[in-house]
Formats: sequence, structure tokens, C-alpha cells
Amino acid sequence: MSKHMPPAHPFDFDAWSEDAGDDKLHEECGVFGVTGVTDAANFVALGLHALQHRGQEAGGIVSYDPASGFNSARRFGYVRDNFTKQSLMETLPGALAIGHVRYSTAGSKGATQIRDVQPFFGEFSMGGAAIAHNGNITNADALRRELIERGSIFQSSSDSECIIHLMARSLQRKVPERMMDALRRVEGAFSVVAMTRTKLIGVRDPLGVRPLVIGRIGDEGWVLSSETCALDIIGADYLRDVEPGEMVVIEDGELKSLHPFVPAKPRFCIFEHVYFSRPDSIIGGRSVYETRRQIGVELAREAPVDADLVCPVPDSGTPAAIGFAHESGIPYGMGIIRNQYMGRTFIEPTEQIRNMGVRLKLNVNRALIEGKRVILVDDSVVRGTTSRKIKEMILDAGAAEVHFRIASPPTAWPCFYGVDTPQREKLLAATMSEEEMREHLAVDSLKFISLDGLYRAVGEVKGRDASCPQYCDACFSGDYPVAPTDMLEKGFQLKAAE
Amino acid sequence: MSKHMPPAHPFDFDAWSEDAGDDKLHEECGVFGVTGVTDAANFVALGLHALQHRGQEAGGIVSYDPASGFNSARRFGYVRDNFTKQSLMETLPGALAIGHVRYSTAGSKGATQIRDVQPFFGEFSMGGAAIAHNGNITNADALRRELIERGSIFQSSSDSECIIHLMARSLQRKVPERMMDALRRVEGAFSVVAMTRTKLIGVRDPLGVRPLVIGRIGDEGWVLSSETCALDIIGADYLRDVEPGEMVVIEDGELKSLHPFVPAKPRFCIFEHVYFSRPDSIIGGRSVYETRRQIGVELAREAPVDADLVCPVPDSGTPAAIGFAHESGIPYGMGIIRNQYMGRTFIEPTEQIRNMGVRLKLNVNRALIEGKRVILVDDSVVRGTTSRKIKEMILDAGAAEVHFRIASPPTAWPCFYGVDTPQREKLLAATMSEEEMREHLAVDSLKFISLDGLYRAVGEVKGRDASCPQYCDACFSGDYPVAPTDMLEKGFQLKAAE
Amino acid sequence: MSKHMPPAHPFDFDAWSEDAGDDKLHEECGVFGVTGVTDAANFVALGLHALQHRGQEAGGIVSYDPASGFNSARRFGYVRDNFTKQSLMETLPGALAIGHVRYSTAGSKGATQIRDVQPFFGEFSMGGAAIAHNGNITNADALRRELIERGSIFQSSSDSECIIHLMARSLQRKVPERMMDALRRVEGAFSVVAMTRTKLIGVRDPLGVRPLVIGRIGDEGWVLSSETCALDIIGADYLRDVEPGEMVVIEDGELKSLHPFVPAKPRFCIFEHVYFSRPDSIIGGRSVYETRRQIGVELAREAPVDADLVCPVPDSGTPAAIGFAHESGIPYGMGIIRNQYMGRTFIEPTEQIRNMGVRLKLNVNRALIEGKRVILVDDSVVRGTTSRKIKEMILDAGAAEVHFRIASPPTAWPCFYGVDTPQREKLLAATMSEEEMREHLAVDSLKFISLDGLYRAVGEVKGRDASCPQYCDACFSGDYPVAPTDMLEKGFQLKAAE
Amino acid sequence: MSKHMPPAHPFDFDAWSEDAGDDKLHEECGVFGVTGVTDAANFVALGLHALQHRGQEAGGIVSYDPASGFNSARRFGYVRDNFTKQSLMETLPGALAIGHVRYSTAGSKGATQIRDVQPFFGEFSMGGAAIAHNGNITNADALRRELIERGSIFQSSSDSECIIHLMARSLQRKVPERMMDALRRVEGAFSVVAMTRTKLIGVRDPLGVRPLVIGRIGDEGWVLSSETCALDIIGADYLRDVEPGEMVVIEDGELKSLHPFVPAKPRFCIFEHVYFSRPDSIIGGRSVYETRRQIGVELAREAPVDADLVCPVPDSGTPAAIGFAHESGIPYGMGIIRNQYMGRTFIEPTEQIRNMGVRLKLNVNRALIEGKRVILVDDSVVRGTTSRKIKEMILDAGAAEVHFRIASPPTAWPCFYGVDTPQREKLLAATMSEEEMREHLAVDSLKFISLDGLYRAVGEVKGRDASCPQYCDACFSGDYPVAPTDMLEKGFQLKAAE
Repeated sequence: MSKHMPPAHPFDFDAWSEDAGDDKLHEECGVFGVTGVTDAANFVALGLHALQHRGQEAGGIVSYDPASGFNSARRFGYVRDNFTKQSLMETLPGALAIGHVRYSTAGSKGATQIRDVQPFFGEFSMGGAAIAHNGNITNADALRRELIERGSIFQSSSDSECIIHLMARSLQRKVPERMMDALRRVEGAFSVVAMTRTKLIGVRDPLGVRPLVIGRIGDEGWVLSSETCALDIIGADYLRDVEPGEMVVIEDGELKSLHPFVPAKPRFCIFEHVYFSRPDSIIGGRSVYETRRQIGVELAREAPVDADLVCPVPDSGTPAAIGFAHESGIPYGMGIIRNQYMGRTFIEPTEQIRNMGVRLKLNVNRALIEGKRVILVDDSVVRGTTSRKIKEMILDAGAAEVHFRIASPPTAWPCFYGVDTPQREKLLAATMSEEEMREHLAVDSLKFISLDGLYRAVGEVKGRDASCPQYCDACFSGDYPVAPTDMLEKGFQLKAAE
Repeated sequence: MSKHMPPAHPFDFDAWSEDAGDDKLHEECGVFGVTGVTDAANFVALGLHALQHRGQEAGGIVSYDPASGFNSARRFGYVRDNFTKQSLMETLPGALAIGHVRYSTAGSKGATQIRDVQPFFGEFSMGGAAIAHNGNITNADALRRELIERGSIFQSSSDSECIIHLMARSLQRKVPERMMDALRRVEGAFSVVAMTRTKLIGVRDPLGVRPLVIGRIGDEGWVLSSETCALDIIGADYLRDVEPGEMVVIEDGELKSLHPFVPAKPRFCIFEHVYFSRPDSIIGGRSVYETRRQIGVELAREAPVDADLVCPVPDSGTPAAIGFAHESGIPYGMGIIRNQYMGRTFIEPTEQIRNMGVRLKLNVNRALIEGKRVILVDDSVVRGTTSRKIKEMILDAGAAEVHFRIASPPTAWPCFYGVDTPQREKLLAATMSEEEMREHLAVDSLKFISLDGLYRAVGEVKGRDASCPQYCDACFSGDYPVAPTDMLEKGFQLKAAE
Repeated sequence: MSKHMPPAHPFDFDAWSEDAGDDKLHEECGVFGVTGVTDAANFVALGLHALQHRGQEAGGIVSYDPASGFNSARRFGYVRDNFTKQSLMETLPGALAIGHVRYSTAGSKGATQIRDVQPFFGEFSMGGAAIAHNGNITNADALRRELIERGSIFQSSSDSECIIHLMARSLQRKVPERMMDALRRVEGAFSVVAMTRTKLIGVRDPLGVRPLVIGRIGDEGWVLSSETCALDIIGADYLRDVEPGEMVVIEDGELKSLHPFVPAKPRFCIFEHVYFSRPDSIIGGRSVYETRRQIGVELAREAPVDADLVCPVPDSGTPAAIGFAHESGIPYGMGIIRNQYMGRTFIEPTEQIRNMGVRLKLNVNRALIEGKRVILVDDSVVRGTTSRKIKEMILDAGAAEVHFRIASPPTAWPCFYGVDTPQREKLLAATMSEEEMREHLAVDSLKFISLDGLYRAVGEVKGRDASCPQYCDACFSGDYPVAPTDMLEKGFQLKAAE
Repeated sequence: MSKHMPPAHPFDFDAWSEDAGDDKLHEECGVFGVTGVTDAANFVALGLHALQHRGQEAGGIVSYDPASGFNSARRFGYVRDNFTKQSLMETLPGALAIGHVRYSTAGSKGATQIRDVQPFFGEFSMGGAAIAHNGNITNADALRRELIERGSIFQSSSDSECIIHLMARSLQRKVPERMMDALRRVEGAFSVVAMTRTKLIGVRDPLGVRPLVIGRIGDEGWVLSSETCALDIIGADYLRDVEPGEMVVIEDGELKSLHPFVPAKPRFCIFEHVYFSRPDSIIGGRSVYETRRQIGVELAREAPVDADLVCPVPDSGTPAAIGFAHESGIPYGMGIIRNQYMGRTFIEPTEQIRNMGVRLKLNVNRALIEGKRVILVDDSVVRGTTSRKIKEMILDAGAAEVHFRIASPPTAWPCFYGVDTPQREKLLAATMSEEEMREHLAVDSLKFISLDGLYRAVGEVKGRDASCPQYCDACFSGDYPVAPTDMLEKGFQLKAAE
């Protein structure tokens, strides 16, 4: 008399975690800074809460107060669970503060330790500075070796720590000049928010790969943030983006703009539009929600299909599904219901647990799906594991047909600019054609938006300029705007080399 | 030189909590039981996770194993945070287990204590039993007084504890008979899941106010659950509902059906369709999602308005908004974005903090809203505080007009059958007409679905049978199917008395 | 190349715990109550801290305040770690409070649960009462069966819970009368401190086995405590002992004395003098320290030996060692040093870990011991495991001879009156003669004080009155003043039956 | 009708903490290292537990394992509460490990942060090293300024971090040579235990102010420890002390001895004998217990008094009291009883709370004291606050006379070599003569041992050699063997300058 057995390890922590992420690319960081307000750290905490989707593993805040100097707190876990406690926030006084949320550093050998959590702080001969970094330094290994040889002691496994050591060794006296010195040695993508006792500083790399915006709050407050949604939460007004290659230094209520780098044609990360940024953010003057909806419209034009229902894979596929439904005239419906009691965690080591995760987080709305030809709209396919699982759920529920429409081109190349991607061989699109993927997923049809279609959706009416692309789209095209120095040294093969 | 001040107490715990709830009615409990499977407690944990929306404050599981007897664990917080730990789950062995999630008991004088968390356990002269109760006993005060007079010692402030004391004093020997004895003394609404060393028992009150369904898992496994979505998560098949007034006793793989009460016409809670139940659940043979979508359709017919955008108040207003958009032909869009890093907590003591809460949880998708005439579809209006705040957010974002469409009739009466409602004077609809509410909220229009429209949406094509309503709709109509004995004693005025 | 291996499991929690206890008898409880002071719970916390040696596993406090009613807090761990927190103590307002510290109930089937921690509270038809019990009810099993049969629901595995259920069922209306009713049904040893909304109540069983004293604080404050050392810590004055068989009821600043039981000849526990009580307490008018020192004097007279050093086994052997050294003229010295960073915990499941424990807690003062003939003075020998280990340490350090002198007679019988004792077969003296024990321990000599010598040390100049002993000395004599009903039913053999 | 009020803030954490310490000098650190054993970190944990009296605030362990590299754990709190957990210890594999316990660094501006907890780790160009430091660097401020100027980034406020930065910048390649380079720049007192991947290293400063001993365990295991009592706990054999100015490098089971410093006449800290070290340790070939007992003998000769009882202030005054009683022939007795449930914590900010602390920790054995002329033997008088409080307790208990005998000379100067001392003006002996102190304490007599008497007790039969003292006794004499560079810069006045 055999009993029904539960799934293996149904209660491992990881089995409960969300896995929207497991089959997604992940932004590694969000940065935020504010000056000229009372209890600045409180604003930073709110801002980081709004940026939590950019990094959910840990967060940190540094503030400066003339009476007690620099103070910092770094914690694992969600902002709302740590930086909401009066007892903690009282240790972070002052009118100037910066903060950081992080996912995890690709380069770390193992689990993140608290010493890897930013902002990093350094005391220099003319005073101290704290920095928070979004992006990835592609020559960090080489820089670290050089700095250790000269006697620097690293405290973390983070590539971002190089910046503060380079600053400490700069022959310049003042922090902005030290930072210029340091960042000129750095290759890769970076949006940095930094602070001294009196200054709030923001910098973007010359290509402007990662976002950074400027906001105003009250008469004399200034804000720097990865996204505009974090301005909204504190009631700040969006002023403009920090420009690619620009350094802004805010002091005594005034902003000074510097341009310390050799100018270059901007290459903003197009995946910020597809997935990373929040739909209520404005990037480069464009609504992320509207862009995603427009991707759905383009998809419906590029890859129409006769069906009964357009159904988003929640939550990131929703705007594109709305656009697809509108353009196609096929009814929109919630065929998949998300359990809102799952956090958006990504610590899932095995494929088996990942697969189980889907059942914990998502359930099929059987009554809606049954007997219907369903178009599932998702934002991307990375490993394909989640897509296969969702397809099975839909078919188990009695769908007549399943058609996948993907709101991004096939993800075939890893990102080295601050996004966590699997090794290339684990990317489904790196080893299979679209038709092979369709067979692998065993669906009735599978279509990705074209690269040109994606460019049109972000407003480039003529599509992608192949000779000089308007965005960084390396994850789709393999066209890397900055050479991945450390990775090449480790044997990574560029497209040209294939 | 004055600085911009942060909102008062921006980091109070409560300010971070979700408040979709604060202005909602809340289900107080979910119950789940399973027998005939290996490691039954693991299944219960999964089931409770799927029922978390019915009670998020605390949860408990009792299991029985011949080697170690009855074991129990009761914890505050989410199921996923407690009942996922291998170390805890290993203390709950056995093939038979029941569980409970709770919100909070209206009758409690203060904060819930762990001793108030169900299931409750009692050792009787012929063996022990554990019970988990969803509902509310309307004569609990009277019963408690009587039991104390006779020498019973209560350990909790929960009305549900009366049941176990009545069972302890029953002159019957066996647990099912003791339970019949006890429940015949009880007035009100109850769906009870109970267990002995060998039996899994389910009961619904004669009116069947609260839901309870039966599922099968594997060859010999049986499941009892508040909703079908909790069958889905463990891969169980939905068999049928426990009928109003029915007691099912499952032992040795067999189910016996008993009918211990005087028969009555069923009065299932209509608000389960409107808000409490998960959209992917099937209630009384009807899809909750489809019912809600149909409410939107009815609303569009009853209260059409010329506008540019149909926008749900996330997440509970979404299905009705989809239905409204479909019926009206006005485009559907996500004008309000929900921060997914908020839990669904309800512990917000003051209106000021509640209002702030909205900003933490919701943000306007300004680019979509700007300049548009917006129809906002929400599930209900309780105090009206959230509605007013949302309206302000929408107008601040530049909407041209704001029209509220509410997917339930005005909530004018408190529930005494297991739902947490504010005192009657705090219900907006108890003191204002629809037009007064519109003025109070200062919106361009405000329309609630009619009671008949709601009944049509749940499939009663002729609408509500006023002489003998098909559902319990006391919160809208003031027509209480069971006399609220304790409340009447405390001075509550019935509608007839007004 | 073999490496030196660490001891097995050197870091198990238990290996770190103190084991002075492991080879000792343990008092199970301390009780304390106070009325007529501001913030009574604070005084109770201080009192329980002073009584911590009587029970270190858990503690609880109940207070009453007219505004908020009865409040309680029960916690595992030391008083100083729990009842020192302002946030917790603020939940225990009022001028009347009682408390309890406990070791663990012999009768519990497994680990103590928080519901086993006293004081217990019951709400009766005329108001509530809380009780804290030191002692053991020898007919608890029979009472529990009877109460369950009648419909009482037990919440704990504690024998003390019987008292509150008996009170709930009493036909009397007032709490003192209900308590008399209840305690007349109870057999065994008990010192009870109880409270209602207005009364502080103390009772001792007719034999007065366990201690209970009365103190005064300020003009109108009254205190009840297991020992006088807990009066000292709050600055209260010792008034007198509660007499055997007496019930005191303190209300409105007045004490009333009642005698509800059939009078009996007192039989106070003589082991309280030997080990349980703190040396700075006064029991029955006698200084515990002076009694212990006098035991050493008697031992030096009864069992002299030629040696170079009198060395106490710290800390409980110290007063007797001082007396022995003084009487014998042999120098006193600290040959064994105690690591003060060990708590006095007793949770050591295996003999192996117990043995290791000694090394963690005690170290030999090698320079003092080397080459000397050493007299080790200890308070008792229970299993003999610690004694053997200590002997080895002393010999390893180079002692020429080791002579044990034990400040109590051989412990040959278990206690059933509120003291945790191993099963009889694990008591070394139950199975061996003094000479066999000496051989077992492999020491040069081993002498216990005689029963008469012990009686002389507590002031009975003629020694023990065999026909009618002045104390309960069952653990030495097997002469049980109250029949151990439950244990006899389980097959325990009295001395007469051997 | 006024109620008796509890003492102000009776439940502040600090009020519960021990204060033996508050009026004592405190050792700041203990260090321990082991190589050539399986699971070395376990031995380190045991060793640190035995050294806990040298630093109770925090502890850390670093281990090296070829498979996983360097691993570390640093925690606040007692060793037994942190480094006993299997889960933590499993993260510290390997046959080589070092550890550190700390009190708190005098130089720190505020509360210790976890980053201040040693061992410190640095990765150099030829491999990494971890160091644990006991002592104090008297030119740390100057060194830190210089290092920051050159681009080093400090992570802690600890003076010990200078050593690792100096090592990182050394032009030498190998770690021992880098360490020599670094330590030659360092002034002050230091006993350092360090490790690389293969070496265990120990160093003492040229004067040998702080202790460090060498032990053997098994055939190939080596141990370095601050005191011998930590050898005992792991069953290691004491080999010899690391000599003043010696560096030992242990690798592959062999010890090499180096002498990198200019030789100097040793000046071991005499206060280690008086108070810091555990009585069961052997220092410089002398038993600490015997030295303390001998101090009591000298005191009895230097300052006899007619009395009835010699009573130690527990626990540190005990050996001297035993010696005093023996020499004087006056009976020894425990007039003050220590509550063993107090930890030995020192975090007491105010004098008021300190005074209250005494009542929580100590109680008078009234029956013994009453009517007697009492000699109280204590180890030292720092601020005098505890002494005054104890005197009051003794008099309240009815003592006829109170005579203080102090087992050290008056403490009139702060220590700058690794001991936490109050500022000079808070030292009672810095501002009062012996007679003024007697009046201040209001006792019948007060006598300190003479400096010569102390030297005799440590075996210098001719007493102190004033021209070239055999020990560092700066706290008594103001004769500082190493110039306190940083303190002089901050304005500290040497004795000659007075």
C-alpha cells in the first residue's frame, strides 16, 4: 500500500523562492543619494525600497553628520526589513546620504559576505569618501593585482572596491579629482554615486551603459537615483539624466557638471527597457511601460497568430501582452495567477528546485485556459527552464494550443556590464535556433521580437544602426562596446573569434 | 534656510506595510487538512501557503504519528518563513495533519498571542483531537461564560476555543459525536477541519457561509481545504464541496458523510467571490476570476462612462477592469504600478500612516495617465481612505478626469461571520449616499455595481431573490441570516431596528 | 602522519554547559511574589534572579494592574536575559505580581515547552487567579486522569496544572477557598505563591517540605519568597517563614493566617541545607553557610586524615572545606579553579559529554596540588561521574594522595518532592557500599558525613530522631514521609519492600 | 499612601552587568593559535574560552584549509555562545588557525563595530596573512596618518590594523620578513599571533610587556597562547614562554626562533600577576595563584590588624585573603556571596548604575558578618566606587569594624600598553593620599601593599630595583618603559613633568 509522496525537499528554502528570476537576467545594483534634506538616510531608504528590483540580496546606507561623522549600516535582506527600524535609522543622521542595493557580484567565488555590501568607504589624507557603484569593471582583476602588489589591502571580493583604492592612491588632493583619476583607470560600465562630508557626486561611464538620473526635492535638495521611480516615492521631481561621461558634483545646493572622460557615442543598455527597469520609470525620456507595450504591438505585427486568448507571464510580460492583445484584437486575460506571498529571490541552485518553484509561485487559472488557443507573452528566454514549465502547466490545464511570444530577441551572449548572466553555454539561444528552441519547449509556435523591432519599439523608427548601434545590445548581438578584458584573459571567445 | 522635511515617521513598521488591506474587509482564516500521504505536514504547509491571503498573521500545523503522538507548531508570520524549515517540519511527522492560517480575531481585546493561534488541541478521556476553525461563533461570549462557570479553563481569547471545551464536556465517547454535540450548541458561521489519531474530519455550518472543499491526492489521500487553489499547489484533484450542514469523516481511506444539523437553505458568503478568494479558485462550481471579470462587464453596462483608459487598482481590481474594458471597448492599461516588495500586512493603526502607505506600495504610471480620462476599477470601498489617496495620485499625475467603478455594492454593514470589518460608523457607505461618497472622494463619477448586478455576475440571471436571498450579503444589505447574539447583547442595532 | 584529534563533538552545546549540576540533585523551582509596591514585576524579576539557582531553564511573571488586567510573560533562559528588557517589563504593570523559575518537571515526556512554564493562570467564574508552585504532586497522574474524564483540558505536562483545574471546579466562590479545596486533594510537597486581582497568597504543605518565607518592604509592601536571599536583593526585611500547613492571604496591606490542613509534624527537606539553598539564605532561623561550615567541622571530627591541603570542589563544597580546614588545622587552598564563563546548565544527555564538561568548567591549579596529599571536600556524590573525573584531574596534576570528604550522607534514594533525581539504579550509593564507591572512584579514602553528624550540623545536638525524624531525609534514608502514589503505581519499590 | 519605589532603572541592561570589572583595570585581549591538529579552529575556540577573562566583548577565529583557503568568523559576545555551534565551526576547516578575544580598544571613538574585531587579514602579493594582537601600539596615530597619506584604506578603528598595512607595504616578499619590517616601525607593547597558509608565527615586543607562551599538543602540534590555562583546556603541554623580542615561526612541525629587534631588558607587566591572568596560569615560571596568596602574606606582615574575620571580595581577592588569613591566624570566611548568574561584563556607563550593580552581583552573608571586625581583601582600588559600596553592605549587615587590605599598590597612572584604564583624574589614588582614600571610603583602616612588598611576592627578594625595575609597574609608579607617543601628543603629562 504505497502512499503518495511529496516532491523531494519540498521545503528547502530555495524551493519557496521566486524564480521569475531564475530564468531571467538580473541587474546587479541600484544606487541612490540625496543631499540637502533632514534625515537624508530616511529618504535613501525609501529610494532603495523603490529600487529593490535592481538588487534584492543586500543593501547599505552611509550618511554624514557634522556631529558624529560618517555612519554606515549594511544588511542582508530587503530594505523594508532592515532600514525601517527606528533604532537603525537613528544611527544614520545627517542631511547627506547615499545607498546601494545589490544582487551579487559575478566575480565572487562564493556567497556574498557582508563586507561585500556597498557603499564602500575610504578615509583619505584630505578626508573620507563613500561610493556606491552600479555596473561592472571589466579590468577589475588586473587592477586588483596591481593594487595588491603596491600594498593595498582589499576587504571584499567586489570589483567595485578597486575604485576606492585607486582613489586612495591618487596624487590629487580633492575627492572629485581623485575619483576622476580612479575612473580613468577603470574599464567597463559604471554609474557611481559618491559622497564626501559636503559633496554628493554622480558619474556615468562614457558610454552611459547603466542609468543615473538627477532629481530635485524641496528648495535645496538634490537626488541621484538609478531610476525615476525612486524619485516618485519621495516626491522628488525628475530633472534630467546624468549624461554619459558626465560627473556632477553637488555642494551647498549647487550642481557643477564636469566631463572628465574622452567623449564617446552613448550605448545605453537596451535590456533596461525590456526587463530591468520598473515600468513606471522614465528612461532617456521614454516611458518604460509604453516601450514594453509597444514591443507587444511590434510582436503582434511581426508574429501574428490565430488564437483565443493573450495571456501574460506575470508580472514582467504584462505590458507587452496588453500591447499584443490591443494590436491583435484577441482578448486579454489572466491565465496565470501569481502567489503574491513569494519574494523575488534568486538563490536557487538546481534546476529541479527551479522547476518546482514555478508551482509555488504560479498557478493556472484553469477555468479561463481550458479549451483555448493561448498566446503566452513573456519578456525573455534565458535558460528556457521556466518557459517549459509554464507550457506544461498551461497544457495540463487543458489549453488547445500554446504560442509563445517573447518581448526580446534571443539572448545568446552574456553581459559583462553589471548584469548577472549564466555562462554562454547555458543560454538556450546560444546553442539552438528559434525552431530548435520551439521543439525543445514543445510549443505550437515560438517567436521572438526582431532586433530591429525592438529598436523600433524604443523609438528608433529605422531600427538598429548596425554600423554603430544606438544601444548596448551585446546580450542579443554579441557586439560588445567595451572589451571584456578580464574575461578575455580567462578565455572567453568573442563573436569575431567564433 | 529651511530643509525639506521627510514625512512624519516614514519608517515606522506600519508605514511600510501594505494597505490595500487597510481599506478592505479581511477574511480571518484558512483551513487545510490532509490524510493518507507521507509527511502530511509538508502538504499542509504548501496548502497553507496557497491560502495565505485568507490569514497572514500566524499559522499552525498539528500532525499525528503513531510513534511520537500529536505534534504541533504555531508561529507568527508567513507560512513560507516558518513552515519551510527542515528543522521545524521534522518535528511534525505522520500521514495525517491539519493546519490553519489566521488574520486576527475581531473579539480579541489586544494583540494576538501565540496561544490564540490554531489549531487547538484537547485531550479527552477517549483520546485527543485537534481542530482548525474558519468562521465566527456569534454566541461565543455566552458559551464561554457558561463553560467557565462549570470549571473549564480557557487558554486563548479565541471564540473557536469554545468548540474544544464543549467537546471535552460532551457525554459522547467518540470524537465525531462529541463534535456534533459541540457544534449544535454553536451559532454562527463555521467551516471546521479536525483530526483525531485516525480520522480527518470536515464540517460546514448549516448555511454554508464559509467555503470548504474536498480533494483527492494519489490513490488513498484525502484533502480538505478552504479553497481549490490549495489543491492545485499540491497536485490534488478537486472532488466536491463539503455541503452546508455536512460533516465528513475520513478514516482508512474512506469518506463517510453525516448530516448532524437541522437542514437550512444555504447562504454562501457572496464576498468570497468579490474579494476574499483567490481568482484561480473554483467556488460552488464557478471560477472566481470569471465571476469578477463578469462583474466588470455588468458594471460597464450599468454605469458606462466616456473615457480614454480603464485602469485597475492593483491587484484585486484587475479582473473586473479587464471585463469593463472588454465590454466598454475602452483600452485597458496599467496606470498604477504596485511595488512587489510590500507584504500584504494590515497592521496600520492610524489613518495618517495608512495614507502614507499608499505611496510606498503604489506608484502612478505617469506617462500613461497624463492628460487622460481614467476609469479606476476597484473591488470595494470600505473606509474610503485608500480611494481618496489613489484619486490624488492620479490627479497629481495629470489625469483629466477620474471615474471610480466599484466591483461590489456599497459596504454598509459589518460582518459577524468570520470577516474583520470596521465598526459600522467607520464604513463610508453606512453614513453617506453614493453621491455624498463621490463628493467626499472628489471624483468625477463614482458608481457601485448594484446588488442585482452582482447576483447576475455570480450566475443568478434573475438577480437577488429578496424574499430569500441565495447568498449571505449582510455586509451590503444588512440582512443577517444568523442572529449576532453576542453583538446584540453589546447593543448592536439591526436594520429593522433603525 | 597522524594528527592529534580533538575530543569527539567538542562543540556540542552540551559539552560547554556546566556540570556541577550533572552529578547533583536539582531543585526544580523557586517562587516569588510581591504586593504593595510600584512596578511589582520589577521586584519579582530581581527576586527570581536571586533564586535562579533553584531553576535555570525558564521563568515567568504574572502581574495585575486594574487598567490592563492580568498580564504575563514566560520565557526560556535566565531571568537576567529576559526580564531585564524595558520593553518586556513595561508589559507587566501593576502593584501585585508573582513569578516562578523552573528546572524541569521530572514527569515530562520530553523537552519542556513554553506552555509548561509557570505561573499558570485560570479564569474562574468569580475572577481569575495565577499560581506558582514549588514542589511535586505525588498523586498528579491520578488527579489528571480524573479531571480529563470530567472535561478539563490540560495545556501543559506539568503536575502543577492540576491545582488550577481543581480550583476551577471547586464549588467555593472565592479564590482562597477554592485553593484550599484544591490543595486538600493534592498529595506531596508544595510551596505555592498565588495571586488574584487583590490578594497575594502563600501556602506550604502540612509537612513544610519546601521553604517559603515572608518579608516586608516599605510601609505596606509584602513579599513571599522561596529563600531570604531574594529578600536581600530588593532590600526587603525577613519577617518569618510561612509555617508548614499555613496559608497566608495578603490583601490591602494586611496578612491573614489560615490553617486549612490537618496538622502534622514538620519534615523540612534537609538537602536544602546541604546544597539547594544559597549560602547567604537563612532557613528556619539557621544560616545555610554556617550549617555547611559546621558540616565540614563534623566531617573533620568523624573522618580525619593526615594531609597537606584542604581543597573545595567549587563552588558548593567551599563552606564545608573552610570548616574542615579550620577544625583540622590543615591549610585551605584553591586547588581547582572554576571557569566563570560557564552557565549553570544541566542539559547534558550523555555521560561522555558530562565528563568532557568538567574540563571545560574546572581546571587544576597544578602548582598548588603538585606533590601534595589533598583532601577534596564536595557536597554530595550522585552518579559519581564528576567525582571520578575530578580525581583524575588532581592525580594528573601530580597530587600524592586524594581523599574525598563528602558533606552529605550517601544519596541512595530518589526524591519525589520537587527535586530532580536520577532513577535509583543510577545512584552510586544505591548499589555500592562506601568501600565499593572508594574503589570505584579509585581514591585513597572516601568518607561521607553520617546522618547523625548531618543532623548535629543543622543544630540537632542529639542527632536524628529515628522514630520520628526532624527532617525529610528520604534521599539518604529511604524514609518517605508522603507515599509516592504515582510512582508506586509505576512499580517503584519502597525500602520496606526490599 | 506612598508606595515603596524600586531603584531607578532597575532593569537597564547595565544594571545587571557585573561590576567587579567597573572598578578594575581590564586586559584588552587574549590571543591563541594552533597548528598541526585536525580541526584546529575547535582547539582555538576552546583556548579562547579559557582566555575569555582577557576579553569578553568579542572574538574571532581565522583558519586555513588548502581546499577552501582562508576562512574567518568574528562575533560579538562570549566564545561559548558563538564558537560552539557546529554550523559555524564547520565553516572554519583546516589544521592551522588563530583566534582573538577582545575587551575594547581605548582609542575607539565609540562602540566597537564588528570590523574592529580581530584577527585582521590581508592579502599580499605573495599570499595572505592573518594577525591577532594583544597589547597597544603607542605610536598608532602617527602610523595611521602616514599610511593613509600613502593610500592605505583602514577598515577599523583598531590600532592593530596598522601592523597589517605596514606588512602590505613592506618591500620584503615573505610574511615573516614583512612582519619584522612592520613591527620595527611599531612602538608599544605587543604579543602577536599570526598565520600564513603554512606558518604559525608568534612575536613579543622587546620588553615582553604582554605574555605569550608556547605549548605542544600531540606529536606534531604546536600552540601559542596568552596564558597556560588555555593549554590546559585542550590538554597541551607548556613548553616555554616566547621570549621578549623573539619571533617564533612554526612550519612543517618545526619551530624556528628569530630575534628581529634590538635587545632590551624585559619589563613584564606586574599587573598580570595581580589581577589579569587566571590564578591557574603559570607566568614566567611562577604560579599566579601562589603569587597572589603570597601578596596576602606580605600584606598581613606589612599591615596587620586585630580582627575576627578575613573575608575576600570575590572572586579576585580570594587567593590574597587566604594568604592573609593564614599568615595572620585570623579565620577565613565567605562574608560576601557572589551571584553566579551575572556575567563578567563591563558596559556600565554611569556611576549610579555601577553602584546598583553591586547589589545585583554581591550579597552579604549577614549571619557571618554580624558583630564582627572584618578584614576585606580586594585586589585593587581604581575609582573606589565598588569599594565604597561593599563597605556599606558590610556595615549594613552589622559589622563592628571594616578594614580594607588591597593586594596591589595604589593605582595612580593609566596604562598605555594594552589595558583599559580610566583617565588619570578618575583614578582615586591619582588625587588622594592613602589617608584621604580611607576617609573617602569611610572605613576603619585602609592599607595597600607596598611596591617593594609586591616585588617580594613575585619573587624579587630584594624588592624593586628602582634604577632599573624588573617589571613594568607604570600604573603604580608612573615609570613608563616606552614613551606613550600618541598620548604625549594629545597632552598627557609624564611624572617628570609634574
